Amino acid sequence: MPIAEQIKSALASSSMIRKMFEEGIQLRKQYGADKVFDFSLGNPDIEPPPAFHDIFVKFAQEDEKGSHGYMPNAGFSDVRELLAKKVCREQNVSIDGSHIVMAAGAAGGLNTVIKTICNPGDEIVVTRPYFMEYLAYCANHGAKLVEVDALEDFNLDIAALGAALNEKTAAVLINSPNNPTGKVYSASALASLASLLTEHGKKTERFPYLISDEPYREIAYNVDVPPFLSCYSESIVVTSYSKSLSLPGERIGFIAVSPDASGKDDLLNGLIYATRILGFVNAPALMQRIVASLTDARIDVSIYAKRRDAFMEVLNNAGIEYATPQGAFYLFCKVPKSKTNRPEADDKAFVDHLKKHLILGVPGSGFGKSGWLRFAYCVDEKIIKMSADAFKSAMESW
Amino acid sequence: MPIAEQIKSALASSSMIRKMFEEGIQLRKQYGADKVFDFSLGNPDIEPPPAFHDIFVKFAQEDEKGSHGYMPNAGFSDVRELLAKKVCREQNVSIDGSHIVMAAGAAGGLNTVIKTICNPGDEIVVTRPYFMEYLAYCANHGAKLVEVDALEDFNLDIAALGAALNEKTAAVLINSPNNPTGKVYSASALASLASLLTEHGKKTERFPYLISDEPYREIAYNVDVPPFLSCYSESIVVTSYSKSLSLPGERIGFIAVSPDASGKDDLLNGLIYATRILGFVNAPALMQRIVASLTDARIDVSIYAKRRDAFMEVLNNAGIEYATPQGAFYLFCKVPKSKTNRPEADDKAFVDHLKKHLILGVPGSGFGKSGWLRFAYCVDEKIIKMSADAFKSAMESW
Repeated sequence: MPIAEQIKSALASSSMIRKMFEEGIQLRKQYGADKVFDFSLGNPDIEPPPAFHDIFVKFAQEDEKGSHGYMPNAGFSDVRELLAKKVCREQNVSIDGSHIVMAAGAAGGLNTVIKTICNPGDEIVVTRPYFMEYLAYCANHGAKLVEVDALEDFNLDIAALGAALNEKTAAVLINSPNNPTGKVYSASALASLASLLTEHGKKTERFPYLISDEPYREIAYNVDVPPFLSCYSESIVVTSYSKSLSLPGERIGFIAVSPDASGKDDLLNGLIYATRILGFVNAPALMQRIVASLTDARIDVSIYAKRRDAFMEVLNNAGIEYATPQGAFYLFCKVPKSKTNRPEADDKAFVDHLKKHLILGVPGSGFGKSGWLRFAYCVDEKIIKMSADAFKSAMESW
Repeated sequence: MPIAEQIKSALASSSMIRKMFEEGIQLRKQYGADKVFDFSLGNPDIEPPPAFHDIFVKFAQEDEKGSHGYMPNAGFSDVRELLAKKVCREQNVSIDGSHIVMAAGAAGGLNTVIKTICNPGDEIVVTRPYFMEYLAYCANHGAKLVEVDALEDFNLDIAALGAALNEKTAAVLINSPNNPTGKVYSASALASLASLLTEHGKKTERFPYLISDEPYREIAYNVDVPPFLSCYSESIVVTSYSKSLSLPGERIGFIAVSPDASGKDDLLNGLIYATRILGFVNAPALMQRIVASLTDARIDVSIYAKRRDAFMEVLNNAGIEYATPQGAFYLFCKVPKSKTNRPEADDKAFVDHLKKHLILGVPGSGFGKSGWLRFAYCVDEKIIKMSADAFKSAMESW
């Protein structure tokens, strides 16, 4: 029998990416896994830090009574208190555990937030390029994603964001450090955005929420990721431990709400209710307790820093331009000028060309930005260095 | 700032249940936890079986490389294969792992299924009384829940179900063993339902899916829960380990699809895609591996059986009628005739009256069936026995 039209057409359009994955598998089979330079997936290959293993064994051995049972939909209250303390330090606010709702990763948290704040037809404004799953997350809840181009250096274009606001704007959604560009928005950029939203709110009597999707906060290179919650009253953080503790398969994260949010009780009760009815019910119990015990632990960011440097050298030598990433583990590169007169905007053609040299990346059009492509450097530094020759020879024939 | 209208009105109407929970906490504070007979919550108090603890410690000590990372959205393929074997045994079908999609509990699985199969305005037919979260699960995805009364003995009313089918019917959703009635639908009832759907499909060229929400399959008393997937081609099972392994806080379960489903590839790909975009991404990694290692383990059902018998004796002695439960851990009771001429249909009044005697239950109207109430017996047998006097004195003044 048929499935929903919306799902059916999504399956048809997402088959391109599926095809790419399948081709990657095929290439590895054909040429050997060590001959294929797969930079397509943002799947952290670094193991969780040693502190994770220790607490995991401790909790398993103790296996406390009731620890796998239901708890309030928002999460264990002691877990929420501990995470609130971490948020206070990072976000320069003063909140207690009542401002935290545990979530099944940032993807779960974002769906919960959008469900809670959007009436049908409401709009969520994002800066392009952006993580394309946002489109589906909005559509799930009858909201419309409105795309605004970033500045040339991938900073926020405050004027363009301002022009996109209207009385249907439920929220502006930012992602910093950014996937796919690696950009970290500065404190002054956030302050300008906050002023913009405040001015808009005063004029329209609807102050849009400002949502920060920040699973990469702890992965930054020689730059501070500025506090977010303290910059605007109607702000909401969504984060996860997928990157900072390398636990993406465990689906654990949380939502934190500004202490100054107007209608805060409704917002928090709504988030808790949405967590329940969307079928999350609560974030996985064991992982809640584990991350609350690991508020000072994180993976060794210097590993990603070294890979970033190695990859930038490879690209420099090949003559491929990129935006220097300040955080996350992606390099966003410009499709180089072609000696054979291929159109610069055609990122898919360049990705196909690289594939012939056994290099896998994702077309920028997969993030709303044609003419660019994304490489993920959550792969061994050796692989990155070994790819240098392949990049060079690919460039010679482009 | 405001939240979504739908969420806001849901918060207002769900405040009754929240109030009840808060009153329960208040009563325990006031009279002592051992004086309050709280049968309101379906939160399993039995610990997971010893085999769970052993495998939990083993996996923690080994902490295999990559085991907390991303896997395909459908789940680990070896886990899916192992669970498919379990499904073959229980459901009298022959399927492999490709028919299994791992889910964040049955609540997550049901949202995934409804999202996948329903166009806006499509209908899902349920038998009343039913687990009221279904209403929100349907509303989440623009589907409409259509309620059909069960027969007086809480069996399926096949004729009434037939009358509810139309060209917008995407699925019939059953729950067996049933919450709140404890009813287990017989093989012949399922066969009649399958015939009904087949006839309807032949006439309308739309064969509704038949969804079985069966987290209580392994909790049944002296009755076989008949296989389900083999009874109808367009059938889908949604289940969890919340009850059978007492892991409700860990959010782990799965969806299984009939090998004979027409459009099976679209259905399975749709379920996998919906798992991703709804924000589940995948069921929690560790718990996937744990439940796949425990396909023969379950909690000791005889504990619930003894509690059921003890509770039925308490109700017999108090003169309260009930539907003898064949499975799950709920007793669905009729509001008794009042000596003081209170209306029989007023289950809320009876629940309030019981509360004065420190007995907590849930009004049947919370399941779409006024004049009844539900007691959950996932509490210590001692508490059940100790409640006998409170029930008797409550009845004397009713």
